[in-house]
Amino acid sequence: MRRVMSILVENTSGVLSRVSGLFSRRGYNIVSLTVAETQDPKQSRMTVVADGDEQILTQIQNQLEKLEDVIGITTLRSREAVCRELMLIKVAADQKKRGAIMTIAEIFHAKVVDVSNDSIMMELTGNQDKLDSFLKLLVDYTIIEMVRTGVTGLPRADATDYSDNI
Amino acid sequence: MRRVMSILVENTSGVLSRVSGLFSRRGYNIVSLTVAETQDPKQSRMTVVADGDEQILTQIQNQLEKLEDVIGITTLRSREAVCRELMLIKVAADQKKRGAIMTIAEIFHAKVVDVSNDSIMMELTGNQDKLDSFLKLLVDYTIIEMVRTGVTGLPRADATDYSDNI
Repeated sequence: MRRVMSILVENTSGVLSRVSGLFSRRGYNIVSLTVAETQDPKQSRMTVVADGDEQILTQIQNQLEKLEDVIGITTLRSREAVCRELMLIKVAADQKKRGAIMTIAEIFHAKVVDVSNDSIMMELTGNQDKLDSFLKLLVDYTIIEMVRTGVTGLPRADATDYSDNI
Repeated sequence: MRRVMSILVENTSGVLSRVSGLFSRRGYNIVSLTVAETQDPKQSRMTVVADGDEQILTQIQNQLEKLEDVIGITTLRSREAVCRELMLIKVAADQKKRGAIMTIAEIFHAKVVDVSNDSIMMELTGNQDKLDSFLKLLVDYTIIEMVRTGVTGLPRADATDYSDNI
């Protein structure tokens, strides 16, 4: 069971270690976490993705809600929220391989952000499935470096999905 | 002084609270943090943005390097790295306002990911300046909700900037 929690917090210096500490004390490894300021500089929004037993995740969520600097928590469910992630990936590519990699990039609407004689760096945004599919297509190439932000998301206005998922 | 640190870590359950604890014990508020798995599931990459005195940030970085689950730290400098951030923003928009908001979205190549009768949600990717400029143009509208992943990045192959910054 995977859960995506969107946690609105006061922008204090200890809030991140308190939130992450609640997971690690239970031996829970967070799959991904993003935290940044909101439109109100006194508040930040964290998006935490965690795998595990649903009952324990609910317990953790209840404990998070009791933290003084936690303002509120929303669970982002896939049909009711827009979830997105950003990836930067640097792939080994000489002149011979460049064309084939560019074709994969075009299919996924990935953006080339840096090139050199022996590498190409691409930026890709989408839901987790899209990023995973992109990585699968690159399996025959050498990934020099890769970084993902982890998932972030917002609830939809209603249940209708107008987003472009690929 | 703002510093962007890219920290490669072992994928252990306590590493995030140890890293964030080092900042909070100094009273340092992290501006943003992203953490997610790399191509090797045993390793994750964190990108931490912190403001402050350069000497203290260097001390923190030295302490981070001593942590058992930290494999390596790279400082991402703006000319030598591609830094990107993803934002989702839900703006109040009835039929009358929708056109003007769509125009702003087009200028910034923001993607509309959800619409309803009274709101519009957009996805935008770019460097921090681009995201801040986009928010400035939306100042006359009501932001219902907003979430940013925080900055992530990778070093360029060389110093030449081929990226599209707007």
